[in-house]
Amino acid sequence: MTKTASVVGASGFTGGELLRLIDSHPEFELEAATSREYTNKTLGSVHPNLRGIEQRFSDPTELASVDVLFAATPHGVSMEQIDAFREVADTVVDLSADFRLDSEDQYEEWYDGHSRPELLDESVYALPERHRDELPGASLIAAGGCNATATVLGLGPLFDAGILEGDEQIVVDVKVGSSEGGAGGGDASSHPERSGVVRPYAPTGHRHEAEIVQEFGCSVAFTAHAVDMVRGASATCHVFPDEPVSTGDLWSAFRESYDDEPFVRLVAGGSGVYRYPEPKAVAGTNHAEVGFELDPSNKRIVVFSAIDNMMKGSAGQAIQAANVAFGYDETAGLDFQGLHPVGTP
Amino acid sequence: MTKTASVVGASGFTGGELLRLIDSHPEFELEAATSREYTNKTLGSVHPNLRGIEQRFSDPTELASVDVLFAATPHGVSMEQIDAFREVADTVVDLSADFRLDSEDQYEEWYDGHSRPELLDESVYALPERHRDELPGASLIAAGGCNATATVLGLGPLFDAGILEGDEQIVVDVKVGSSEGGAGGGDASSHPERSGVVRPYAPTGHRHEAEIVQEFGCSVAFTAHAVDMVRGASATCHVFPDEPVSTGDLWSAFRESYDDEPFVRLVAGGSGVYRYPEPKAVAGTNHAEVGFELDPSNKRIVVFSAIDNMMKGSAGQAIQAANVAFGYDETAGLDFQGLHPVGTP
Amino acid sequence: MTKTASVVGASGFTGGELLRLIDSHPEFELEAATSREYTNKTLGSVHPNLRGIEQRFSDPTELASVDVLFAATPHGVSMEQIDAFREVADTVVDLSADFRLDSEDQYEEWYDGHSRPELLDESVYALPERHRDELPGASLIAAGGCNATATVLGLGPLFDAGILEGDEQIVVDVKVGSSEGGAGGGDASSHPERSGVVRPYAPTGHRHEAEIVQEFGCSVAFTAHAVDMVRGASATCHVFPDEPVSTGDLWSAFRESYDDEPFVRLVAGGSGVYRYPEPKAVAGTNHAEVGFELDPSNKRIVVFSAIDNMMKGSAGQAIQAANVAFGYDETAGLDFQGLHPVGTP
Amino acid sequence: MTKTASVVGASGFTGGELLRLIDSHPEFELEAATSREYTNKTLGSVHPNLRGIEQRFSDPTELASVDVLFAATPHGVSMEQIDAFREVADTVVDLSADFRLDSEDQYEEWYDGHSRPELLDESVYALPERHRDELPGASLIAAGGCNATATVLGLGPLFDAGILEGDEQIVVDVKVGSSEGGAGGGDASSHPERSGVVRPYAPTGHRHEAEIVQEFGCSVAFTAHAVDMVRGASATCHVFPDEPVSTGDLWSAFRESYDDEPFVRLVAGGSGVYRYPEPKAVAGTNHAEVGFELDPSNKRIVVFSAIDNMMKGSAGQAIQAANVAFGYDETAGLDFQGLHPVGTP
Repeated sequence: MTKTASVVGASGFTGGELLRLIDSHPEFELEAATSREYTNKTLGSVHPNLRGIEQRFSDPTELASVDVLFAATPHGVSMEQIDAFREVADTVVDLSADFRLDSEDQYEEWYDGHSRPELLDESVYALPERHRDELPGASLIAAGGCNATATVLGLGPLFDAGILEGDEQIVVDVKVGSSEGGAGGGDASSHPERSGVVRPYAPTGHRHEAEIVQEFGCSVAFTAHAVDMVRGASATCHVFPDEPVSTGDLWSAFRESYDDEPFVRLVAGGSGVYRYPEPKAVAGTNHAEVGFELDPSNKRIVVFSAIDNMMKGSAGQAIQAANVAFGYDETAGLDFQGLHPVGTP
Repeated sequence: MTKTASVVGASGFTGGELLRLIDSHPEFELEAATSREYTNKTLGSVHPNLRGIEQRFSDPTELASVDVLFAATPHGVSMEQIDAFREVADTVVDLSADFRLDSEDQYEEWYDGHSRPELLDESVYALPERHRDELPGASLIAAGGCNATATVLGLGPLFDAGILEGDEQIVVDVKVGSSEGGAGGGDASSHPERSGVVRPYAPTGHRHEAEIVQEFGCSVAFTAHAVDMVRGASATCHVFPDEPVSTGDLWSAFRESYDDEPFVRLVAGGSGVYRYPEPKAVAGTNHAEVGFELDPSNKRIVVFSAIDNMMKGSAGQAIQAANVAFGYDETAGLDFQGLHPVGTP
Repeated sequence: MTKTASVVGASGFTGGELLRLIDSHPEFELEAATSREYTNKTLGSVHPNLRGIEQRFSDPTELASVDVLFAATPHGVSMEQIDAFREVADTVVDLSADFRLDSEDQYEEWYDGHSRPELLDESVYALPERHRDELPGASLIAAGGCNATATVLGLGPLFDAGILEGDEQIVVDVKVGSSEGGAGGGDASSHPERSGVVRPYAPTGHRHEAEIVQEFGCSVAFTAHAVDMVRGASATCHVFPDEPVSTGDLWSAFRESYDDEPFVRLVAGGSGVYRYPEPKAVAGTNHAEVGFELDPSNKRIVVFSAIDNMMKGSAGQAIQAANVAFGYDETAGLDFQGLHPVGTP
Repeated sequence: MTKTASVVGASGFTGGELLRLIDSHPEFELEAATSREYTNKTLGSVHPNLRGIEQRFSDPTELASVDVLFAATPHGVSMEQIDAFREVADTVVDLSADFRLDSEDQYEEWYDGHSRPELLDESVYALPERHRDELPGASLIAAGGCNATATVLGLGPLFDAGILEGDEQIVVDVKVGSSEGGAGGGDASSHPERSGVVRPYAPTGHRHEAEIVQEFGCSVAFTAHAVDMVRGASATCHVFPDEPVSTGDLWSAFRESYDDEPFVRLVAGGSGVYRYPEPKAVAGTNHAEVGFELDPSNKRIVVFSAIDNMMKGSAGQAIQAANVAFGYDETAGLDFQGLHPVGTP
């Protein structure tokens, strides 16, 4: 009783990750992997790790019927193609920003005009840790932005426990890898220019801010830096609650939120080299690491959150959400534990 | 009917990889993970990717009986402990250099004196691509050295096809990652000194040379360089056959050797970014990539071979050999395909 | 009329930079480079870039008289040795934390007890951009901490212009390279563990906070992350002024502070790849890059500051301060412009 | 009596290095830095390390008369523009491949047709260590290829001492950084694809081979790999002399060749971390490190050579050659010693 799955935009980075995950998924069977540019070429010619798969890229204009279609296309494409997608698939999981926000107003504020605003309310935000109940049976699912995902997982327990209410000062300082820019990229993404950077690339106004605001009804001071990783997003959230909290309060809040979550690990202190969340520790996996420390001198809570932007921040999250949508084991196909040691992720 | 497995020396890098592979292996069940230094600490306190495993490190002097014992101890330890190992386990798979060579003379030439020389002949060299028939039922298996493994997989088809016979000029120029030095390491392994190097670390006399010589009966001019990777070994073999060969001859030889091998991929030319073997393309996996090019101007064959030194070059090879020894599917527990894109592996 | 200079602790990273800078300085002549561990070895045996210098390390207990002594010893050593240092040198420039703070109370709050507290008030904080007038003729100069230096250079113009007064919310999120940990280091500094990290290493309570507090009389919420660089410190300061400011106000403030500074560059927006301060752009130099952006949505000013922690954050700053102390051209010996492109700095 | 210098193609990587070197050169004064794409933009908008220089890029079609013109244009441009260059400058130093080879036949064998073959014999190969006598007064100077430069410096002493005569087996295995590909680059040069590679990019037939053949009249088996550096070229030469040699013979040969050379350091063994030539140790400098080891088991000499491909392999070599051509101190403007520690160069 496997379900058939196609990936549109399969030659990109997140498309390739979807192919990999579907290929080893116990319930999904890959139907088509589309690519305009690479039609008829082997998957391995673009994604060297997939050299063992016989299948080839197919023409995106010739989509067969499937149970689920994953769209890994650039922002703006899915809203234009959504009717075609839904014609061939009962369930569409979109990895772009097109259906992440709930209202046309929000979308226009952070992006541009939306050609299918009536679908914004219908789509379900994929993050199972916060929207699990909405996923079963959903027909349009929008995977969240990677930086938003890291931040939302970090701050969620504080809002859920009432430690934050939305009017506090929240500073989010994010560090991300180069895969976020997708394949290709311009001069700034070339190896000589991009190597070894700590480069502010979105000092203010990053679009992922919109998803955080939507999730919590808060305001957030968000800044993103490019650092020397390929995969990974790390969010450091500096928050200043109105009421004093103890470290015990924080442990309670984070345990309450995450003790039953299969993909969230609490990492806060302890011994050894890896005492706080790090992208390295989750590279290649669907895990998120979340941790915190209380700064008594200035009543600050520092929350750390680390994910693989390609996995929990995109393709892995999409598979996890699809698992929930179809009633599968939520961890199906997502059991890779990651590597130690590992280089620059 | 799972088999129980223990890992001795489990806090090291290859020990950690064995734990990871055993944890997700369909036929093995982890009995004990020993570490003198970390007894009673969680596996995750050393290997952050294994935070999900409840088990803790145990005392290496208290070994319970198991079906298979994997020894990931420094060179010289296994030969001293081998009786204790064999007392508790029917099958011992050793990842050190202690049992790789066949004769006491060879061992003394490349290492020092051997305390149990009578076992050298008994032990089976783990590499299934060349010693598959010797593995079923073997009770002492020695995983090969990572650089030797990469080289032997690259040169094997040329010897098997008679293109090389052992008296030709063979130059092997190897590039390896920092995990080869194990955890800890001295000043030369510290991040500020080790980052970004192309550092000759074994210009001549590298001990892995002994395994290549043993395998093919040839002489080899071998030099190893440390480069900026954590995982990975890449061997470039420059060989000069006595008789002219064509590219077609080479394709025939390599296909003959590897068409049925589940873990060896031929990568030679083609289009796209990844046209020859690269450690990046196999990082985290048990795959080897092997390729070649003929240089008509100087009658040279250039053979490229790339592996993950921690996997195909050590822990993965050990599991693969154990799979064969026990009659399991050779690929059991080794199905991770690797990632694309991925940073410095 | 050159002055003689000795470096105590010359085998360490900042010691090596001092040697390099003194060697090419038009006014200083190297007298002695001491190292207990490497006495009589060539400088080049530790610092490969200094292979051209004939001099060898000398015994730290046999110090000849010099005009200036640079102490690049671990924290706590200088306060014990200060009498011996001052006996042989009229001017001592200390690169440790021993004399950075002004009062015993502060020192005890952030470090431990101080054995020579009476000198704390006498010592001059080296940063010429803020303490130039105090340097001429100073006999005890304390180079600032690298993270403090980056932060103080970033925030200084806002305090000087009255945009900040000390009671505002200030969050400082710092990213630093591995050289900050010095030569050697433990497991956490080994290449396999340290590569590719975004690792919170001082979530709260970082000692460099003390220097920022001392400089501005403010409170600061400071967090430091290790990232994959060897050299470099990048500070992102998120500040929330009480009164609204315009981008024009900010330009005025930063230009007022830095238009005449030889080592501070304003980098804020513009075109091309390098639009904000980056450690890469100043690697190997004594330059600091400082920039900012106004976030109208949350009344936040984001200030970016980037330095080479070994240069402007340590050895370069020390030479610059010594230049001012002796009345030399402030830029003497510090004219290296840095490289483009450059890898991980 | 400074001489005026212009750089054509100044927005590229080697062009930027020329600007940097000229700016701090005691004898040269920068007249023009041309760039078609960036005309009228500041130098710092492309080369962030040059933000301190007021000058702007100028139109390449409007060249003023100068004493020396450095052409840092892509291969094929100089041969088309050479008359225009020579009309405005008495001395032209070309950094492309256009004038490196001596004969039209050679050029056609390795490149394509040459539009100005009569100039090939006239041009002087820039490498002063081998062609110093030809440089004074030369009006057309061709800087060598970076990989050829590294190799020629490594092998030179063996040929000069008669240890090699040209008919021996010579294998050259080169590792180079990403700056060799120039600014921009395609998918293969994007950070996600290029990070952490050990990638064979020219298994056979690399064009720099031509320069080695020309220099020594030998045949060479040459293979180049891209590794994770931005700057740097490392050549490992495996050579098999007909007659036995001793380590003493090798020291004599290398000392004879290089004891008086200001930019070549012999690094062979010794203690410490840096015991053989490494690109890291010379990054940013005009130095070459050369070393060797004798392999008694197979009568092999392994020669290591490391340079910064942008400096000794290109712009630095060009300045050094110009210094000789004009009778200046050969090291003028080239005194930067490099950094320790330094990250990925």
